[in-house]
Amino acid sequence: MPAEIIDGKAFAADLRGKVAGHVARLKADHGITPGLAVVLVGEDPASQVYVRNKGRQTVEAGMASFEHKLPADVPADELYALIERLNADPKVHGILCQFPVPDHLSESEIVARIDPAKDVDGLHILNIGRLASGQDAMAPCTPLGCLMLLRDHLGPLSGMNAVVIGRSNLVGKPMAQLLLGDSCTVTIAHSRTRDIEEVVRRADIVVAAVGRPEMVTGDWIKPGATVIDVGINRIDAPERGAGKTRLVGDCQFESCAQVAGAITPVPGGVGPMTIACLLANTVTACCRAHGLLEPEGITA
Amino acid sequence: MPAEIIDGKAFAADLRGKVAGHVARLKADHGITPGLAVVLVGEDPASQVYVRNKGRQTVEAGMASFEHKLPADVPADELYALIERLNADPKVHGILCQFPVPDHLSESEIVARIDPAKDVDGLHILNIGRLASGQDAMAPCTPLGCLMLLRDHLGPLSGMNAVVIGRSNLVGKPMAQLLLGDSCTVTIAHSRTRDIEEVVRRADIVVAAVGRPEMVTGDWIKPGATVIDVGINRIDAPERGAGKTRLVGDCQFESCAQVAGAITPVPGGVGPMTIACLLANTVTACCRAHGLLEPEGITA
Ligand SMILES: NC(=O)c1ccc[n+]([C@@H]2O[C@H](COP(=O)([O-])OP(=O)(O)OC[C@H]3O[C@@H](n4cnc5c(N)ncnc54)[C@H](OP(=O)(O)O)[C@@H]3O)[C@@H](O)[C@H]2O)c1
Ligand SMILES: NC(=O)c1ccc[n+]([C@@H]2O[C@H](COP(=O)([O-])OP(=O)(O)OC[C@H]3O[C@@H](n4cnc5c(N)ncnc54)[C@H](OP(=O)(O)O)[C@@H]3O)[C@@H](O)[C@H]2O)c1
Repeated sequence: MPAEIIDGKAFAADLRGKVAGHVARLKADHGITPGLAVVLVGEDPASQVYVRNKGRQTVEAGMASFEHKLPADVPADELYALIERLNADPKVHGILCQFPVPDHLSESEIVARIDPAKDVDGLHILNIGRLASGQDAMAPCTPLGCLMLLRDHLGPLSGMNAVVIGRSNLVGKPMAQLLLGDSCTVTIAHSRTRDIEEVVRRADIVVAAVGRPEMVTGDWIKPGATVIDVGINRIDAPERGAGKTRLVGDCQFESCAQVAGAITPVPGGVGPMTIACLLANTVTACCRAHGLLEPEGITA
Repeated sequence: MPAEIIDGKAFAADLRGKVAGHVARLKADHGITPGLAVVLVGEDPASQVYVRNKGRQTVEAGMASFEHKLPADVPADELYALIERLNADPKVHGILCQFPVPDHLSESEIVARIDPAKDVDGLHILNIGRLASGQDAMAPCTPLGCLMLLRDHLGPLSGMNAVVIGRSNLVGKPMAQLLLGDSCTVTIAHSRTRDIEEVVRRADIVVAAVGRPEMVTGDWIKPGATVIDVGINRIDAPERGAGKTRLVGDCQFESCAQVAGAITPVPGGVGPMTIACLLANTVTACCRAHGLLEPEGITA
């Protein structure tokens, strides 16, 4: 029996709708407009697209969007001064700097300067520490999106065996923390894992965040398991014409979908959740900044 | 074949010797004496014993020991002012407050006030974040001690299947981070884990940090596995006389030792490592404070 396809695109649209509802209430009841500031250094075309999409979706949700574009050779001090101003600006509840940045800048130095309360990407060391110790944190957007899809599809996750493939600070590790927070029995697999097929085959929940096109095949999947494919890999697609490419995940969709109970496609699965969770985190940050109750269902 | 007994007492004595060697070199080459400040609030008898032991072993390693005893009803502000002074004191490289503290004080508030660079217990949220993201951190002493025993016994841990039973911020979670840092495939089990026997039975390395006397029995252990028993549980021992008690671990020693390749006893296994690692962390903190190379083999 083929797997149910988890429609991340529809779920993300739904989440953005919820966020917009919360924003409308914040405006009506408290006169507050949540604001998200995005900093873009240089002219990387992919980054420009992301930033444009973020800005558009921020505005569509009724929030204020502040875009700051700096030249590729901006001195670090100037960038830090901008972050300082955004930290101090009460209209700004979330701040993110689009990565990658040019080589003369350090991503970790940039993140360290963002007020942790406004770190809607969840990358500040304080937010990592809070997440790891079970305190209220800003959770990184992509793993938070995966968690929401899983909760929506499976209900309470307590007691389920979850295997996270990948241990990056951006995806794998925070994903493991979030699943542990929901009381899964969590296994973290990575490039040194032996017999990885067998490890994955025990999982009720598989989250693949590896960056290797179609590495996970159907014979790795326990029948009925839920498969969340975080990978976004561009591969050659000569069948579409000379020089054409297409996107695939870290899971081989066709074979996994034959065995899994449910699976996210690539594209249209986890991808759209990331920006939706960024908006959700901004609303959460705004509520915390104003001492208001956090809205249900949009945080970890 | 019965398991090798991992002699934590001897290993800890060895580690203290290594620490003393580093201390002697810091004194001779740089004129620096590492210093550890311990704060004790109230008169809890067990805490008094711990603090006395810490002070004694600190001095035996050639370090400076500063003990601060405050009355049980000390106002929080006074305690915080002391921590401020210790943070500012260049002779103090490590600070710890002995827990538990009386009810009017908050452990998390206390830890948050300790300079993360002097937080030799590794409990500050910044150190948790650093550990979770693979940066240089102060690792909590008990899991660090377990890691040292494992490395000593097994050599490189890369690729081994490790199961940590327990997910406390004090032991289970940092233990999982440390094992992941050494490239184990790590599974975190806890009270919601299903079929826990089976999960544990897959482990090459089992770390039990549960607080349930003799919960893990020999039939949970894969033949040849290494078992690290963190639990310290006092149970009735009528066989020793009326009202007598004895200490047992979270693992049933007799049955586990029949199957395991190696096992830590209770007492005399993990227990003695905790203070030894506290001394090691103090030397590490001292070297970092002075911009000196960290000594090999005493950090994560
Ligand atoms: N919005 C989104 O949907 C979104 C967001 C972020 C990332 N992504 C995608 O997610 C994927 C992972 O991203 P990332 O940032 O986490 O990547 P990353 O930093 O490169 O981490 C990849 C992880 O996969 C592990 N790995 C590599 N080869 C492996 C193998 N053969 N078997 C098992 N594990 C292996 C690595 O293990 P070691 O640690 O042992 O090297 C590492 O932990 C990428 O495709 C990325 O494009 C998507
Ligand atoms: N120096 C030392 O040697 C040293 C230092 C510290 C602690 N210890 C000892 O280590 C033990 C654990 O300490 P801790 O501070 O980590 O304890 P803790 O905070 O009470 O945590 C216990 C953990 O065990 C889990 N657990 C409870 N019952 C379980 C069950 N039936 N099956 C599986 N997991 C179960 C709990 O799961 P949930 O999260 O699901 O509730 C929790 O995560 C204690 O015996 C303590 O005395 C020794």
